[in-house]
Amino acid sequence: MARFLSKLKHVIKINDITPALLEKWGPEECATRSVLATAYRLTHYLNWDDLIYGHITTRIPGNEDHLLINPYGIHYTEVTASNLIKINSAGELVDQGSAKFPFQPTGAVIHSAIHTNRPDLGCLMHIHSEPGIAVSAAVDKIEPIIQANVELGEISYHDFRGVIFNSEDKEPLSKDFPAPSKTLIMRNHGLLTGGETIEEAFNKMHFLHQVCQCYVNCGYIHTPIPARKLINQQILESSVYGNEECRYDTAPGVQEFEALARLLDYQGLETGYPYSEASKHILERNMK
Amino acid sequence: MARFLSKLKHVIKINDITPALLEKWGPEECATRSVLATAYRLTHYLNWDDLIYGHITTRIPGNEDHLLINPYGIHYTEVTASNLIKINSAGELVDQGSAKFPFQPTGAVIHSAIHTNRPDLGCLMHIHSEPGIAVSAAVDKIEPIIQANVELGEISYHDFRGVIFNSEDKEPLSKDFPAPSKTLIMRNHGLLTGGETIEEAFNKMHFLHQVCQCYVNCGYIHTPIPARKLINQQILESSVYGNEECRYDTAPGVQEFEALARLLDYQGLETGYPYSEASKHILERNMK
Amino acid sequence: MARFLSKLKHVIKINDITPALLEKWGPEECATRSVLATAYRLTHYLNWDDLIYGHITTRIPGNEDHLLINPYGIHYTEVTASNLIKINSAGELVDQGSAKFPFQPTGAVIHSAIHTNRPDLGCLMHIHSEPGIAVSAAVDKIEPIIQANVELGEISYHDFRGVIFNSEDKEPLSKDFPAPSKTLIMRNHGLLTGGETIEEAFNKMHFLHQVCQCYVNCGYIHTPIPARKLINQQILESSVYGNEECRYDTAPGVQEFEALARLLDYQGLETGYPYSEASKHILERNMK
Amino acid sequence: MARFLSKLKHVIKINDITPALLEKWGPEECATRSVLATAYRLTHYLNWDDLIYGHITTRIPGNEDHLLINPYGIHYTEVTASNLIKINSAGELVDQGSAKFPFQPTGAVIHSAIHTNRPDLGCLMHIHSEPGIAVSAAVDKIEPIIQANVELGEISYHDFRGVIFNSEDKEPLSKDFPAPSKTLIMRNHGLLTGGETIEEAFNKMHFLHQVCQCYVNCGYIHTPIPARKLINQQILESSVYGNEECRYDTAPGVQEFEALARLLDYQGLETGYPYSEASKHILERNMK
Repeated sequence: MARFLSKLKHVIKINDITPALLEKWGPEECATRSVLATAYRLTHYLNWDDLIYGHITTRIPGNEDHLLINPYGIHYTEVTASNLIKINSAGELVDQGSAKFPFQPTGAVIHSAIHTNRPDLGCLMHIHSEPGIAVSAAVDKIEPIIQANVELGEISYHDFRGVIFNSEDKEPLSKDFPAPSKTLIMRNHGLLTGGETIEEAFNKMHFLHQVCQCYVNCGYIHTPIPARKLINQQILESSVYGNEECRYDTAPGVQEFEALARLLDYQGLETGYPYSEASKHILERNMK
Repeated sequence: MARFLSKLKHVIKINDITPALLEKWGPEECATRSVLATAYRLTHYLNWDDLIYGHITTRIPGNEDHLLINPYGIHYTEVTASNLIKINSAGELVDQGSAKFPFQPTGAVIHSAIHTNRPDLGCLMHIHSEPGIAVSAAVDKIEPIIQANVELGEISYHDFRGVIFNSEDKEPLSKDFPAPSKTLIMRNHGLLTGGETIEEAFNKMHFLHQVCQCYVNCGYIHTPIPARKLINQQILESSVYGNEECRYDTAPGVQEFEALARLLDYQGLETGYPYSEASKHILERNMK
Repeated sequence: MARFLSKLKHVIKINDITPALLEKWGPEECATRSVLATAYRLTHYLNWDDLIYGHITTRIPGNEDHLLINPYGIHYTEVTASNLIKINSAGELVDQGSAKFPFQPTGAVIHSAIHTNRPDLGCLMHIHSEPGIAVSAAVDKIEPIIQANVELGEISYHDFRGVIFNSEDKEPLSKDFPAPSKTLIMRNHGLLTGGETIEEAFNKMHFLHQVCQCYVNCGYIHTPIPARKLINQQILESSVYGNEECRYDTAPGVQEFEALARLLDYQGLETGYPYSEASKHILERNMK
Repeated sequence: MARFLSKLKHVIKINDITPALLEKWGPEECATRSVLATAYRLTHYLNWDDLIYGHITTRIPGNEDHLLINPYGIHYTEVTASNLIKINSAGELVDQGSAKFPFQPTGAVIHSAIHTNRPDLGCLMHIHSEPGIAVSAAVDKIEPIIQANVELGEISYHDFRGVIFNSEDKEPLSKDFPAPSKTLIMRNHGLLTGGETIEEAFNKMHFLHQVCQCYVNCGYIHTPIPARKLINQQILESSVYGNEECRYDTAPGVQEFEALARLLDYQGLETGYPYSEASKHILERNMK
């Protein structure tokens, strides 16, 4: 059914670099910020996003040890050039950016691990799209079924070992994604592509996604579920435990709910939601 | 195909609490009403709603025996803070709210049964989304197939025993959803999640839905239909009978049709539909 | 991917009955026309329509031998109260309505056949929706898999015997849809529901559609294609022949293309298409 | 999930023929340009497009050796009457049109090959839609499963031999699509239809697409993947190589990313993207 949407009253411009920020960050970083923010917006328009989860990261030209990443808690339609967070490749905060959503180091583990190991990749894109999740859950090895496979090169695979939070998760992950592969299936989890540039990583994701969608549409997935496809019970339990640890000190689901409620407020729907400080701050910026 | 939608001309604000209502209901209830109404709107935007069916209920802080619920007949895009109905946990009307859609006690049986038995759950969310229905019809036991399973905890199941209308349906249902489970598959029917808060129940539904969608996309569902999956013929017949009983005194399909026709009128399409009094009342409020 | 749509600049109001038309047709017929036109619009919003194909017909209160039907060539988003065509139950033109799309008697054969045989049904709705087509092609007998089945009552089936054009197709069709059944699966073709009222037929279609969607999502459909599911070669060939005959004297695909191109012109996109007279006439009316 | 779209601020009119262009190209060519540009727009609205890939070509009345084709790099929502490129049937540039996206001869190989061999076809339409890709990857032979098959006539098939770039690819392709067939399944690649007119080719695609969607919805596709369905490893490798060759001298993914980023700029989102000259030129035209 078509959704009955009000139109967005508040257009959130992508390139929101002020003269002061241009001076602070320099023209190269600012240009990179705009391109990366555009990639987040397009990820939403292409229906590849999953609430506030997933990340696209990119190195900053001239300072290859620094990465730009979305703050945890911001919706993909809210990402702008200025609210991207700067971290170093060890995953430590360097610059908070213009939003007040606190940096969550656990969210950066996947990207920090791969960026450290793969100097050839300037950009990494990790998503939980519907066909991507399905293929990650069920397909052993992606076979060349359509023309888009031609663009993917060698495909890597990483088994699910629990939700990735800690430094000790870095080595097994990066070992499973050696050069020159630019496409990684994270089993029971989602997709990851890399590229020299943001555009290349994004285009690789387009082709990978088309192949995944084709797998779903063709029913090229084993049924019933093979036992070896299931997440191991021990991993499942340790993940639940680990997962609680990785949250901020907010109640369950609040960040997610706030991100969606903000979208209604941008439409003029006046939710009256008792927002957190960070949400109030971004709303105020965007609803001017 | 993209639907050719006119834009909504009439934005229905979620938080429509007037000073008089604030005084009548108090700030805590009013705040809860806004959050619950927001949850209904988001349910629509996420494509989880099914016309005028399904419910999200929440306890009112400070009076845990009272529940807020949507009136039967209102579309999810029309729910506001003030038109939620207040009932007690026995399922009896306490406050009609600002709309004129009559309270339908049979609609509250599911929620009343569970809220009574589960003081730990402040909010219950019950939906008939497409992937939810599919999994409810066909999946015996949800296995851990993706990362989202980690968030679901123990999953409960309730067999289809006919459309749920009567007090005698309460016990079998509540027995099948014991603490600490927050996720219930209502077989051949739909999904239900609970949480301490509205946000938690909503976020649980997000993860449950992602798992259901993955089941559908993976084709992880038995084919052909196993005989034991079919609704028993006796149950089917008694449900048809029972179902007629639970309707208001309107002709079949009129409430549903009116709810959809109102959406066209909000777009300025001037249906000229001979609406019921309750519909006229809500249209008048919303088209000012 | 989200479609990049301009918003419709030209809102086509549903109830376009002028005082002169009210006098000509009387208040009861005019009210019925508005409700039926609303049903066409909702069919589009619910994604059940298929270009300019399919029909919803209704008897006119006070003159049960007269039916209202959409003219062939009009898009579902263009149907208004005044441009519905009036025919008698033998399928002959009684009133052209306000548009200039010529009446196509072959299009009315299905509805004329059933309305004649089923005085209990005031409204018939026949669609080619995606899940409806799939179930019509592949499901032998619809089993009770979800709660929505409860609403469907006895389901009838009609085998594909070629595209339905001629009077001799009427008897086999109506024989396959005896009272009190209100749900007909037209094999290898689509869905049909009936009701005493437009609202009832529409609501039956909602439940039938939900069941069909669940069949698709569950993969409850035989694979590979059983030979007996295929359209007989002789039928296929005779249909191709018959099909050419049933067209107006326009080139292939022109009516369909014009219907879609008009939608772009309503968005202000100025196609410059060399439209037929009938198209020019409806565009002129709607773009005032 | 519904996408949160801003509305397009900049409506790109389809028929943008100026008096000077009318004089240069003549009324017949200009009319054909408008119809072809409309077909590109409708391809987008129907969700059949794939970024900047695929082509619809048509002969120009009065000069049957000349073809109109979209320039490589333009999004389907940007195609207008004036920015179509004119080539001859050998695939050589005749007129650049109003945009500055350079002509890419390799993109025209498929259309040039078929137009040369099939004087009966005035228009060819080649797409990579989701259900089309799925059927191209997995279905051996399309069987008559629904009424839409009646409209397709004889269906042809062309095996995947690598990405089609070179003159030597022309013969095997055109040999596989003999008259009077108007429907071609390009295996592991996509769909192609032809017609005497643009409208006929478009309508054929509608019916072909409906059949493909029905195949996907019915699960009428072999699982697991039969070995003979896989793209041959040698073909895969040679295609990767060939593919690099066929690109302009831009970095990977840049053209695709620019096409999408332009859509955000049309919505007023101000990406700040460092666009190519061709992109700047089309943006300037469209954002006036």
